[in-house]
Amino acid sequence: MSRSVAAIIGGGVIGGGWAARFLLAGWDVVVFDPDPEAERKISEVLNNAQAAVPQLIDKPLPKAGNLQFAASLEEAVSEASWIQESVPERLEMKQAVYKQIQQACRQDAMIGSSTSGFKPSELNADATRPGQIVVTHPYNPVYLLPLVELVAPPETTETQLDMAKHILSSIGMKPVHIKGEIDAHVGDRLLEAVWREALWLINDGIATTQEIDDIMTHSFGLRWAQMGLFETYRVAGGEAGMRHFISQFGPALAWPWTKLMDVPELDDALIDKIASQSDAQSGAYSIRELERIRDRNLIGFLQVLKRHNWGAGAFLNAREASLPDAPEAPIADINQPLRLYTAEVLPAWIDYNGHMTEFRYLQAFSEATDAFLGAVGMDAAYLEKGCTFFTVETHLRHLGEAKLAEILPVETQILMATEKKLHLMHQMYNAAGDVIATSEHMILHVNNKEGKSCPAGPEIWSKLEPLATAHQNLPVPDFIGRFTGQKA
Amino acid sequence: MSRSVAAIIGGGVIGGGWAARFLLAGWDVVVFDPDPEAERKISEVLNNAQAAVPQLIDKPLPKAGNLQFAASLEEAVSEASWIQESVPERLEMKQAVYKQIQQACRQDAMIGSSTSGFKPSELNADATRPGQIVVTHPYNPVYLLPLVELVAPPETTETQLDMAKHILSSIGMKPVHIKGEIDAHVGDRLLEAVWREALWLINDGIATTQEIDDIMTHSFGLRWAQMGLFETYRVAGGEAGMRHFISQFGPALAWPWTKLMDVPELDDALIDKIASQSDAQSGAYSIRELERIRDRNLIGFLQVLKRHNWGAGAFLNAREASLPDAPEAPIADINQPLRLYTAEVLPAWIDYNGHMTEFRYLQAFSEATDAFLGAVGMDAAYLEKGCTFFTVETHLRHLGEAKLAEILPVETQILMATEKKLHLMHQMYNAAGDVIATSEHMILHVNNKEGKSCPAGPEIWSKLEPLATAHQNLPVPDFIGRFTGQKA
Repeated sequence: MSRSVAAIIGGGVIGGGWAARFLLAGWDVVVFDPDPEAERKISEVLNNAQAAVPQLIDKPLPKAGNLQFAASLEEAVSEASWIQESVPERLEMKQAVYKQIQQACRQDAMIGSSTSGFKPSELNADATRPGQIVVTHPYNPVYLLPLVELVAPPETTETQLDMAKHILSSIGMKPVHIKGEIDAHVGDRLLEAVWREALWLINDGIATTQEIDDIMTHSFGLRWAQMGLFETYRVAGGEAGMRHFISQFGPALAWPWTKLMDVPELDDALIDKIASQSDAQSGAYSIRELERIRDRNLIGFLQVLKRHNWGAGAFLNAREASLPDAPEAPIADINQPLRLYTAEVLPAWIDYNGHMTEFRYLQAFSEATDAFLGAVGMDAAYLEKGCTFFTVETHLRHLGEAKLAEILPVETQILMATEKKLHLMHQMYNAAGDVIATSEHMILHVNNKEGKSCPAGPEIWSKLEPLATAHQNLPVPDFIGRFTGQKA
Repeated sequence: MSRSVAAIIGGGVIGGGWAARFLLAGWDVVVFDPDPEAERKISEVLNNAQAAVPQLIDKPLPKAGNLQFAASLEEAVSEASWIQESVPERLEMKQAVYKQIQQACRQDAMIGSSTSGFKPSELNADATRPGQIVVTHPYNPVYLLPLVELVAPPETTETQLDMAKHILSSIGMKPVHIKGEIDAHVGDRLLEAVWREALWLINDGIATTQEIDDIMTHSFGLRWAQMGLFETYRVAGGEAGMRHFISQFGPALAWPWTKLMDVPELDDALIDKIASQSDAQSGAYSIRELERIRDRNLIGFLQVLKRHNWGAGAFLNAREASLPDAPEAPIADINQPLRLYTAEVLPAWIDYNGHMTEFRYLQAFSEATDAFLGAVGMDAAYLEKGCTFFTVETHLRHLGEAKLAEILPVETQILMATEKKLHLMHQMYNAAGDVIATSEHMILHVNNKEGKSCPAGPEIWSKLEPLATAHQNLPVPDFIGRFTGQKA
């Protein structure tokens, strides 16, 4: 099956982020950007993304797609089912780009614009097929922050809109469909309000860029990473909730708490002031270093939110659940130890020493057990009957270490099986063929409701019994049946 | 030495947060609030704070101070060296409160106001000693978010200002001294700008409270928890930095990207719209539940930032470094099994059956092993020498199940220890006192570079040896030294 193709028109920080999103979701990507530096810039964004994204999904990601650079816009868009435009914020330029795109692209492709501010009905004013062009406004870094604001013009059909939502979701983004077309959509209106107010604070000498940033990062910035404006204020209202909050702070609307009735003039003096304050604040780091610091922090926050299944973390968990599990290998030869599961050392599996953490070995062995049980017929339908297998005892041995991205096949052998009880052994290999860990498990078949052991159903036992019989001819390693600390 | 005393005037969510800050920093606190519910409300905030704050500081906190409720304002302030006013945002009320405070308080006390909006020169207009009153504007939850905006009127002396900074720092807050007096200081000007814009978005039917909050929490909210407006835009400017960003987005200032030239009328219809959207969004949780969710998320973020020594985490690390070290390892009685670690069943630890997943038991036991090794002196400085402990063999037994949010204390017993080898046992209990899992581990002390076992350093062995000797008198359960599947 051929892969889906995305065209990226404009390969800056935003275009590069989109390229990474599509590539890491298994799409092929074709970039067009006349900038001779585009290839280098995109590969840098892609490196950041490749280091970051696997830390957020505890399943194997799809095989990454291929990245190509096209010599012309026409070549880039010709095969694409998604075309993402991220050229500078000049309306005439964008409109000219769409004209060129629509002459060369598929009629059933969707064209998303990364515009921060223009309305879809402005973007498509000269378009051949106006419904094909929608606003899909992402946030930097695009490969980490899931949000995309989706705004469609009236000409876009429901089918097109559904396709856009489906594709954006499939590359791990969270489309929020904004029903009304307004300048700057929603997020950038809020950002613009803050930006204008902050410019006044700098202009009037009330605070420096450093002070404003400190105030944000040590207070409400932390709040907004997990609850937005309204939920935060609902909580702040205390037991009386939202109404109380509004009645308390509503009157401030009439007070001179912002300068936003006016717009500061962004003259050379103000630009100099901001740029030099920003140098004093952040100049000790290069932009690349700041990007890495930012990504590391964002990954940490997202992992926290995943653990608590909240906000952007709940979104990531839902995405993870929608991805296929590691494929199960079929049983090739019942007379040999089985190879049904291969672990891949994910970034989250690594400790501060760079080695796979102790408990991840048991995670891998558990998944090998699950793969084995799946191979003998324990599926969702079986679980629904209320029966399952339950590990009561485990003996683990650590013989070697594993590092990031190592591929570790696990070999499984049945030591003994009855309809109620299973004695299973796993051995984990590294690429050199050394056994780096072993496990031995006593597993009971239990009735989940009654909480006691019971015989496995015939659909399981009919597969398990011949396997167990065949494995009785296999040699049993001498570490089996030994206690912890027993000499070989 | 008698303790410092802080008076809290007004005991709502903010006053309660201040009370918690002072108490957990070892101050005695006297609260005055005529609300008969104040005592209950403050004790709830304090409970949240007592659960949260110790998770952020890896050192023992000072012994908490005493909390009292005064029958009158005069009684509350008479001994206080810090008086924090958090009464409602009505200027005349605040001015009357200061008059009453200044008649009864020490002349060398500082009076901080939690006002979100009033200028110090408005607050102290009628004051006897106008320099004594400063704005100290915190952010909810006050016991977790370190920021406090400090604004002083011209009458405040350098000595008073230094004292205010010193006291705020000593209770773990980060004072940012804002040199100019303006309405709403700095942070609330930014918040007010967002709030006004968001009200327009709701009013005009562009987005709901849920959509606005989703947009914030899945995009720029995550950014602002670790880099503010200016540093974020510096990075967004790419290699060309701040100047490039401004030149790209500066023109938008002249565009209709906000509605802030105007203020929405907060009439009953708009209040109803917001309150009912907020109910639909967050009504599934009580305010107390939302507070706990918020705190858990904030603690997670702050722990991430601490680990990376960035932003609010760098601030917490500096505070931690300024606190005295733990007097000794937290081992209460060397003749008993040790209780050094308690697992909490996090949402990510749960399988599809609602039970704690197999490998998370090993994760908890590993953390118990780490806590034990920490208690016998394995710290960052020791690890830097290139030596560590490495688990080579583990025997796990599952005797019961655990569900979400269960608290599972782990008891640790040394079965045998030499300078090179450690035989350790853990037993995991549930709230009913049943053992739900046990583990037995062989652990080697290894030289990480050479990858082979070696004797532990004297700083470890001097703590480990007496413990191991004392534990030889403890009974050894009969599951120790048994192989997997062996009958009891």
